[in-house]
Amino acid sequence: MTEIRYDVVAIGNAIVDIIGRCDDAFLERHGAPKGHMRLVDADTSAALYAAMGPAVEISGGSAANTMVGLASFGARAAFIGRIASDDFGRIFRHDIKAAGVVFDSEPVAGRAPTSRSMILVTPDGERTMNTFLGISTELDQGEVRADMIAQSAIVYLEGYLFDRPEAKAAFRQAASIAKKAGRRVALTLSDGFCVDRHRDEFLDLIRSDVDILFANEDEITSLYQLPFDEAAARTAADTSLAALTRSAKGSLILADGKSINVPVDPVAKVVDTTGAGDLYAAGFLYGVTQGMPMEVAGRLGSIAAAEIIGHIGARPEVRLDKLAREKGLMK
Amino acid sequence: MTEIRYDVVAIGNAIVDIIGRCDDAFLERHGAPKGHMRLVDADTSAALYAAMGPAVEISGGSAANTMVGLASFGARAAFIGRIASDDFGRIFRHDIKAAGVVFDSEPVAGRAPTSRSMILVTPDGERTMNTFLGISTELDQGEVRADMIAQSAIVYLEGYLFDRPEAKAAFRQAASIAKKAGRRVALTLSDGFCVDRHRDEFLDLIRSDVDILFANEDEITSLYQLPFDEAAARTAADTSLAALTRSAKGSLILADGKSINVPVDPVAKVVDTTGAGDLYAAGFLYGVTQGMPMEVAGRLGSIAAAEIIGHIGARPEVRLDKLAREKGLMK
Repeated sequence: MTEIRYDVVAIGNAIVDIIGRCDDAFLERHGAPKGHMRLVDADTSAALYAAMGPAVEISGGSAANTMVGLASFGARAAFIGRIASDDFGRIFRHDIKAAGVVFDSEPVAGRAPTSRSMILVTPDGERTMNTFLGISTELDQGEVRADMIAQSAIVYLEGYLFDRPEAKAAFRQAASIAKKAGRRVALTLSDGFCVDRHRDEFLDLIRSDVDILFANEDEITSLYQLPFDEAAARTAADTSLAALTRSAKGSLILADGKSINVPVDPVAKVVDTTGAGDLYAAGFLYGVTQGMPMEVAGRLGSIAAAEIIGHIGARPEVRLDKLAREKGLMK
Repeated sequence: MTEIRYDVVAIGNAIVDIIGRCDDAFLERHGAPKGHMRLVDADTSAALYAAMGPAVEISGGSAANTMVGLASFGARAAFIGRIASDDFGRIFRHDIKAAGVVFDSEPVAGRAPTSRSMILVTPDGERTMNTFLGISTELDQGEVRADMIAQSAIVYLEGYLFDRPEAKAAFRQAASIAKKAGRRVALTLSDGFCVDRHRDEFLDLIRSDVDILFANEDEITSLYQLPFDEAAARTAADTSLAALTRSAKGSLILADGKSINVPVDPVAKVVDTTGAGDLYAAGFLYGVTQGMPMEVAGRLGSIAAAEIIGHIGARPEVRLDKLAREKGLMK
């Protein structure tokens, strides 16, 4: 049997975030649905960038953020995603490797640019994402490293990948390789609108291949078209392990017939919610890969999410293992 | 006579900062002189980037930061600097324009990349800069817009430009155009090592063309090779107006034979000193262009510097005119 070299390998969009501040009126004027991710084409992207205020660039990408969080807890994490041979590609590659995540995908020259997301943060700390999927959309089955997936205890898949057929095929292939190798498959639903676009396929995938499901309230209610409690009951029936995040209300873990409520970790000031779900997943997955009790895994998710919403950007600014030790959750 | 359209036009390096954290040992290992700016070639730049931790990208450039600060006070500011047609060039262009600074320089394709500086911030908040001067060094006399300079009450020149002959020529040309148009010339010495490299030429320029001089303690003592008090006396003899910044000791304004000590503005925590001098210059120049008393101009410099060292990056995160009004320095 293949030796396990990674706790988790993720497949996702390789994105650099362009983060700026705006008011609610700006979002309305530009048709950006508050709190959601929308895909923008090159023209809309250029027009929005011209209109938005000064920004900072920080590496992002939902599953990539989760892998950086895992590495910060001390796990062995790897990431598969496509970057172009441009400045944004170099930024993405540098930051994820410098964070201790294994990233072997080679930059691709002469095609689309590296993907970027214009993230507009309103005064309440809520983020609204406008993603220009450049070369990420070209992620195809050739990029999915069968060896890496077979060597990982868990393969973590980003729902956003469903937005392009090639990436979706790569996604399904990865799940299939993992299953054959006896590994676990984790999925994050990514965004309520994304779930809307692919509801039936997500449900099929969850019932057939997914061992660990991550979703927020918006996503899980969108998936089942039911109020939260009913959607949670359906989730428990469809999956063996799920973590449903509910912003300030904490998270609900559904594990082998049990329901566990996990409180949030207190935050002095919500600066930017970008990455809150990604980092919750990092803490939870760390707990799962280390065989910790579900309550502890959930608490690790809460402290990672709290760290990330206290500052701009979706990559942790301090070591998460240190934070977890200070809270008495890790030795 | 040409109408004045801008309070200040600056000529400087158009740089995107790549800001990361490190400890003092990292600086020593990589031969980076703490608290200074050093120029690095492409190979050193690549090696340092590979070694440094995760970073954020924020538009920078000394004189560019000063112009953004001026615009944030409500002044009419313009910037001249050369960018390439790449992601970093687009970032620089977007951010400076979004901040309200007039920037008409067109991106140049197919030559060197846009300039970048790897800024390493140590736990004490001190920044150490490693600048790869890409296309900035190609700034030449063709880029110096005579019309723009003649339309500006003050032309502000960045000492760093002296590090390349073409830029130095452009620099001298700008000073000459300004003088002929009856405008004032301001100069910042930029860095103690930079002064070391060009001491005699700086002295010549200051005595012949400079009306307003900015320097920190390190730079002014390097210029005159004298202790601070004696260097300040020489500065007073050589210039009609100078502002000498002394970190926590505040600043000393030398104006027509008078010496004025200006206190610093209190800062809760020094996070990153990048841009402290640039923003001091912004506040001081704003006061000068509005005909305020020198004490007030100095205080505006202090509050702008305090704002910038409280967070990562050298561009203000709040409106400086609002801050100045809260402090009762502006109406």
